[in-house]
Amino acid sequence: MAKHEEVQDGIIFPIGEKNDAYAQYFIGQSYYNALVADPNISVAVGNVSFEPGCRNNWHRHNGGFQILMVTGGEGWYQEFGKSAQALKVGDVIVINDGVKHWHGAAKDSWFEHIVITAGTPEWLEPVDDDHYNQI
Amino acid sequence: MAKHEEVQDGIIFPIGEKNDAYAQYFIGQSYYNALVADPNISVAVGNVSFEPGCRNNWHRHNGGFQILMVTGGEGWYQEFGKSAQALKVGDVIVINDGVKHWHGAAKDSWFEHIVITAGTPEWLEPVDDDHYNQI
Repeated sequence: MAKHEEVQDGIIFPIGEKNDAYAQYFIGQSYYNALVADPNISVAVGNVSFEPGCRNNWHRHNGGFQILMVTGGEGWYQEFGKSAQALKVGDVIVINDGVKHWHGAAKDSWFEHIVITAGTPEWLEPVDDDHYNQI
Repeated sequence: MAKHEEVQDGIIFPIGEKNDAYAQYFIGQSYYNALVADPNISVAVGNVSFEPGCRNNWHRHNGGFQILMVTGGEGWYQEFGKSAQALKVGDVIVINDGVKHWHGAAKDSWFEHIVITAGTPEWLEPVDDDHYNQI
């Protein structure tokens, strides 16, 4: 049984729908709940949840940034050229303009974070099994 | 006994220290935990917690905005000229540039929200007991 299955019920904020719009940039199943998507506001805010083993491709936020606020489960964050960093509830990550990175669940755990995003995403190569299984 | 005393332990994110820097703009005791305060990032993110009955003064965010994401307890949000709106866990409020408003705890409940803020705050008159006790 996977760890932190309570994430499926949403920790504070509902997990939302299957993240079909971005499925092409993920390995595994993620969920997205748009909390703020307002043309008058310069950031988007959402709740992103990942099934165990799910992670997004390497990507950048150009002309902007992203903040991750972990609300449930266990996962990973990695910047290109650095070691992957284990994430747990209460962790906050700031990703600066143009920094290549990925994030996602641990192999055996659901994972959930709030994301605050500005700028334009640039999606890159997947985090393949060889890489993911070695972290 | 006040409702939602578990807020004192922090819901997901620690409640931080007594919010002495802004005490002059609050009635009652609040707490602040800076989650993101980074010169490269155009928003500040923090966890604000309120003892029962605590609320901030009427204020505006000029040249910016504020987002409230309720993580614990029960409270209030009011825009000037509108009725006060009861807040509970999972509620998200978007406050546009220059909109006069206040937020805080219910009389009998601790209250906690994450705030995402841009722009320059303009602090105005307190929410006095006559007003607060009538909502």
